[in-house]
Amino acid sequence: MSKNSIDNKMNKIVSLCKRKGYIFQSSEIYGGLDSCYDYGPLGIELKRNVKEFWWKSMVQYRDDIVGLDAAILMHPRIWEASGHVEGFVDPLIDCKTCKGRFRADQLESTPCPQKPSKMVNECGGELTEVRQFNLMFKTHMGAVEEDASAVYLRPETAQGIYVNYTNVLQSSRQKVPFGIAQIGKAFRNEITPRYFIFRTREFEQMEMQFFVKPGRDEEWFEYWKEQRIRWYDELGIRKENLRFHQHDENELAHYAAVAFDIEYNFPFGWKELEGIHNRTDFDLKRHMEYSGKDLRYFDDATRERFVPYIIETSAGCDRTLLTALVDAYEEEELENDTRTVLRLSPKIAPIKAGIFPLVKRDGMPELAHKIHDDLKRHMMVFYDEGGAVGRRYRRQDEAGTPFCITVDSQTLEDQTVTIRERDSMQQERVGMDAILNYLHERIN
Amino acid sequence: MSKNSIDNKMNKIVSLCKRKGYIFQSSEIYGGLDSCYDYGPLGIELKRNVKEFWWKSMVQYRDDIVGLDAAILMHPRIWEASGHVEGFVDPLIDCKTCKGRFRADQLESTPCPQKPSKMVNECGGELTEVRQFNLMFKTHMGAVEEDASAVYLRPETAQGIYVNYTNVLQSSRQKVPFGIAQIGKAFRNEITPRYFIFRTREFEQMEMQFFVKPGRDEEWFEYWKEQRIRWYDELGIRKENLRFHQHDENELAHYAAVAFDIEYNFPFGWKELEGIHNRTDFDLKRHMEYSGKDLRYFDDATRERFVPYIIETSAGCDRTLLTALVDAYEEEELENDTRTVLRLSPKIAPIKAGIFPLVKRDGMPELAHKIHDDLKRHMMVFYDEGGAVGRRYRRQDEAGTPFCITVDSQTLEDQTVTIRERDSMQQERVGMDAILNYLHERIN
Repeated sequence: MSKNSIDNKMNKIVSLCKRKGYIFQSSEIYGGLDSCYDYGPLGIELKRNVKEFWWKSMVQYRDDIVGLDAAILMHPRIWEASGHVEGFVDPLIDCKTCKGRFRADQLESTPCPQKPSKMVNECGGELTEVRQFNLMFKTHMGAVEEDASAVYLRPETAQGIYVNYTNVLQSSRQKVPFGIAQIGKAFRNEITPRYFIFRTREFEQMEMQFFVKPGRDEEWFEYWKEQRIRWYDELGIRKENLRFHQHDENELAHYAAVAFDIEYNFPFGWKELEGIHNRTDFDLKRHMEYSGKDLRYFDDATRERFVPYIIETSAGCDRTLLTALVDAYEEEELENDTRTVLRLSPKIAPIKAGIFPLVKRDGMPELAHKIHDDLKRHMMVFYDEGGAVGRRYRRQDEAGTPFCITVDSQTLEDQTVTIRERDSMQQERVGMDAILNYLHERIN
Repeated sequence: MSKNSIDNKMNKIVSLCKRKGYIFQSSEIYGGLDSCYDYGPLGIELKRNVKEFWWKSMVQYRDDIVGLDAAILMHPRIWEASGHVEGFVDPLIDCKTCKGRFRADQLESTPCPQKPSKMVNECGGELTEVRQFNLMFKTHMGAVEEDASAVYLRPETAQGIYVNYTNVLQSSRQKVPFGIAQIGKAFRNEITPRYFIFRTREFEQMEMQFFVKPGRDEEWFEYWKEQRIRWYDELGIRKENLRFHQHDENELAHYAAVAFDIEYNFPFGWKELEGIHNRTDFDLKRHMEYSGKDLRYFDDATRERFVPYIIETSAGCDRTLLTALVDAYEEEELENDTRTVLRLSPKIAPIKAGIFPLVKRDGMPELAHKIHDDLKRHMMVFYDEGGAVGRRYRRQDEAGTPFCITVDSQTLEDQTVTIRERDSMQQERVGMDAILNYLHERIN
């Protein structure tokens, strides 16, 4: 795709997100806060559904994984043990000419702010030496601003799991192999946040850390690779837009022995959606060393003590939302018209059904309200009586709503409604007492 | 209650929370991080259930409220407009003798760290002048640590709703009166966090801001007072432990015309659980002034323009969890025994049912596994075959699990199981094919 058509598609999605209440620029009335975004009424429902589906798949349906919700603020020694204080840095360069600050390893692809047709490495500006910049947000806890009180906003949720691993083991009756799953916010002071909600400074992770016996890690790694790519398939993401990418030696993080990304084919290229890592015993050993606590696992059956290996599946919640939106967005050419439709899987669509009276008289609104009031005890639904019914369908197409239920004059006679399916635009008549079942069968 | 019995009850709850995996001290292996807590496998499920019940009551079941999920990091001007930069301060005093730092308005009730039998105002230490200390956590965004890049962790979620109010209006087809609901983290650098998870520096709010026409605010205020106290009743909290407390002039926040707290009778006294505030047009007017944007509402019907009044219902998620745990905790004297039981409402109990084979043979484990695997598609359940069945019941009593299903020798003959109810300890025989219905009827 050319740069223009990339921008074109992304711009259309960004615009739809604002218009329909999916995603707003943070603090927009104050000119916006760079790289921070707020989820609107539809956005938060999409997010709730994605998180719920992840939690069910990873915790509720399984016997070998339990949940956790660790605080964002943690003891600062944790980030020394994890290697983040020392190693979580970007190399930066300042330009004395334009006062800009840039990633030293991306000068060739960063346009000069003053001469945007040239890249920073060829614009002629006077550049400083490279300096290392830590990406963690730092703040102070307690009444005194001094080094002793410095704490960080966690740059990843994983460490909250590792430091709780013995507490979870002792309280949950789990045995190795088992996993701990967590959904939560993390923060990285990125120099180059970009691509809408793809890379932001505040973001939400859906992470699972699976503790296994050393020697069994390779088979579990393969197992989790397969499970996780299947999850995106179940989410309704098109298979041809997903692929694995294996990290070569230069890409591998310091903690990982093997790493595969699940990548999605965004308009701006194939990019990481989720990382699956064999973190070995690196993290637990470091926490043993830094905390002085024995974090070895005692195996009742074999009377052995060992430090478990960890297989991590680390997904971005916001990235998954962006993926779902990009994958679902379509402008469909009809005979005399183009319709914009979000073909979201019914499982994650924010509104499951729109409910319309064909016209605002003859008792149709009353019947439609009754259907709406019954259904809303079971799922998110939306009542709309404004404008021609065709326009109401199109509004729900843009919102991603998979079903529209219309009360018309026949309803008054035989208690049937039409249910119109978003993708095919086909309608069928269904008895009022069968609507809930009809929807349940198609949503889950 | 005497101080000893208060500490006694709270200590028992804190201990149960750790033992059963409800709540752990944050960063415990590093000596803990003061006033931060992590939710374990049962704690996160309780939290998920409480949040889900709030969201259904406040968003899904209603036509006039939509959801929002604003970022924690917002434009710093927002906290000038809201009054937090100037006014969100505590008066502090240092003691030159013991180097302690204390709330100047609480010297009479703060024990001296060196002479704990005396309070700070009578211990003879040399105290400094009073200074004002801002409670917002400050950090820096972007590569440069300077004033221009200072941002704050939000001290309340409400402002994220106000600054998005026109975006929500334009995208959601709502009209005044309507509300915006949000669940999210907020941070306050409290000098005196206390009472376990009651007052912590990192906490989660469940807030709803209801926008009404000026002049209609008093009736909506009364409406929301009633709705919100009923919500705790539906959550299973005992009525006699809840009351309203009206703020007098000295207690009223600068933004509020009228304020009522819903208070709960904790072991450490009656304390605020939720605030219901008439914030008038204070916040929107301030944001109009600071942003230069017109935030007035245009009423189609009357052709009027006005700044809506806001009725706020602001609940603490962590406090609601503590309330549920404290209210549910009981040591029940039996004939030869004491049993510890968490009488949580089945609606919010982390695990809905324990599933046990009476003994580990004769095909009972296989049948119990089958029941477990069927049920887990619908709710959180827990399989346990370890130890005598009486001990397994007691473990689930402590975890707050309302039902235990046991497969015994009769099951093999007639496909019935026993279901034992937590509070009454009564058992009844139910057909295997009727278990799901039995549970659904009693859980929702």
